[in-house]
Amino acid sequence: MAVNIDDVWDATKRIADFAHHTPVLRSRSLDQMVGAELHFKAENFQRVGAFKFRGACNAVWSLDEASAAKGVVTHSSGNHGQALALAAKTRGIPAYVVMPADSAKPKLAAVRGYGAESILCDPTLTAREATCAQVQQRTGAVMIHPYADDRIIAGQATAALELLREVGQVDSLIAPVSGGGLLAGSAVSLGSLCPSAQIIGAEPVGANDAWQSMQAGELRGIEKPSTICDGLRANLGAPNFQILMQHRAQILTVSDAETVAALRLVWERMKILIEPSCATVVAVLLRYREQFAGQRVGLILSGGNVDLDALPWAKP
Amino acid sequence: MAVNIDDVWDATKRIADFAHHTPVLRSRSLDQMVGAELHFKAENFQRVGAFKFRGACNAVWSLDEASAAKGVVTHSSGNHGQALALAAKTRGIPAYVVMPADSAKPKLAAVRGYGAESILCDPTLTAREATCAQVQQRTGAVMIHPYADDRIIAGQATAALELLREVGQVDSLIAPVSGGGLLAGSAVSLGSLCPSAQIIGAEPVGANDAWQSMQAGELRGIEKPSTICDGLRANLGAPNFQILMQHRAQILTVSDAETVAALRLVWERMKILIEPSCATVVAVLLRYREQFAGQRVGLILSGGNVDLDALPWAKP
Repeated sequence: MAVNIDDVWDATKRIADFAHHTPVLRSRSLDQMVGAELHFKAENFQRVGAFKFRGACNAVWSLDEASAAKGVVTHSSGNHGQALALAAKTRGIPAYVVMPADSAKPKLAAVRGYGAESILCDPTLTAREATCAQVQQRTGAVMIHPYADDRIIAGQATAALELLREVGQVDSLIAPVSGGGLLAGSAVSLGSLCPSAQIIGAEPVGANDAWQSMQAGELRGIEKPSTICDGLRANLGAPNFQILMQHRAQILTVSDAETVAALRLVWERMKILIEPSCATVVAVLLRYREQFAGQRVGLILSGGNVDLDALPWAKP
Repeated sequence: MAVNIDDVWDATKRIADFAHHTPVLRSRSLDQMVGAELHFKAENFQRVGAFKFRGACNAVWSLDEASAAKGVVTHSSGNHGQALALAAKTRGIPAYVVMPADSAKPKLAAVRGYGAESILCDPTLTAREATCAQVQQRTGAVMIHPYADDRIIAGQATAALELLREVGQVDSLIAPVSGGGLLAGSAVSLGSLCPSAQIIGAEPVGANDAWQSMQAGELRGIEKPSTICDGLRANLGAPNFQILMQHRAQILTVSDAETVAALRLVWERMKILIEPSCATVVAVLLRYREQFAGQRVGLILSGGNVDLDALPWAKP
């Protein structure tokens, strides 16, 4: 296996001075609704508002001095771009973030606010990859892929490791799945600390490539995902898929309507902001509650970056 | 003085099995914006979503067996009604909550959900007080006023006591002021644990009766308060005013626009839900930041009950 628990321990040490040790939250009312004992790892309180900072920070601090000096590059319109920008800032090295020219202005501003150089390109995967390659050639910067990268997987795995060290044994652990950095990392931590527990990926039914891939036993992609969960539209990465197969991950899908209802429930009962991509884990909990009845369940609340001017239930 | 620190310690013991010991939060970005070291006591995570449960719980558990058996009554369309309903439930005694007939259905449902009897009346103070008196006559229930009550003040004071025990000395402590239960209680705790620190009330300029009262040195009322802060429309109570005078409380006022901006800032940066009444403390911090520069500041985040279908910045 490419990533093992020693890598996760190394990542934990590497990021300790930079990433927040986020709290584990409980909710009396959600426990009652589900009939289970729920432990929520609040990565919405992580720096840049999402778990993504863990992986980016581990990747940046894994580089040797010479490589690091040339900087890091990635393409992302979302949390990974901001996370890499801030991670590079913690080491004082350059970061280049390739973003689609139609990215929302606050996202561009956030990346630049962390001191990174944002490079605009056409909003296609081809254009993004080509632009990244150009930046690499020009600067010698190291490409840090958002999820198909062992350093990223080991970094994201630290959230589940912290959770399990704090709460002890669980029966199930649920995290959202998109490219699979978080879910594969969580599987590695769970497999080591709670080997008999079930790792579960929460996925929007309109972007269910992970579900399809696990059913088929081979990697499947979706060309045009359809979901409001803007953080869950990527296809599963190859190394991520390998780890999920090895750990017999279960993928459970939910509709966007279920996700929005779960999001409101968390806001109203737990008084914390989570983003739609994150709410999928709670939607899974409610939709498949028979599976979790009587269990101790860990959940990774992956992020809290939400556009307050466009709340999903306010849409026509 | 009517309420002293021994009463607060007694309240702390009395409510320990029922109220949450809420966390103290930090925010790197707000610290930087204000140039101060900020410690936020997150009472939005308290049961029923607001500090009000502390006072209600202390009042209910202060009653002798015979009085308690007949139940408690209050008039409130807001958090105090729900808080008293839940507090009565923890002791297994009846609660009667007099509410205006035009109260929002979720608020009626919440009070009833906690097992209390809700009694509707006309939406005037006269009708509410008359209906309360009728209920008292009929049932023998004990009236628990929302703020002009020593048991309530001592209960609300426990939030500041917890905060100060956790963070140590502060230079200033800010809490919202309406009837003054929370602010007077906070003044008592601060006066005992940090006698040289300044107690500060945050008040909407459109409901600035506390500001007027402190300026005049005598209790002043406002007949028609005008503010979106639905928890801050009551006039200061007489015992509350006495305590605030004794502790030389400073009242700082903010506009609703400043409050809404502060609310958004807290949602976006801290990823927690707070209600407009609660956001006034952060609005004060930003509006009067010169006063707080370089200080250690405690803030009571009073509550997180907000109508997600009617966010203040979405209004025309």
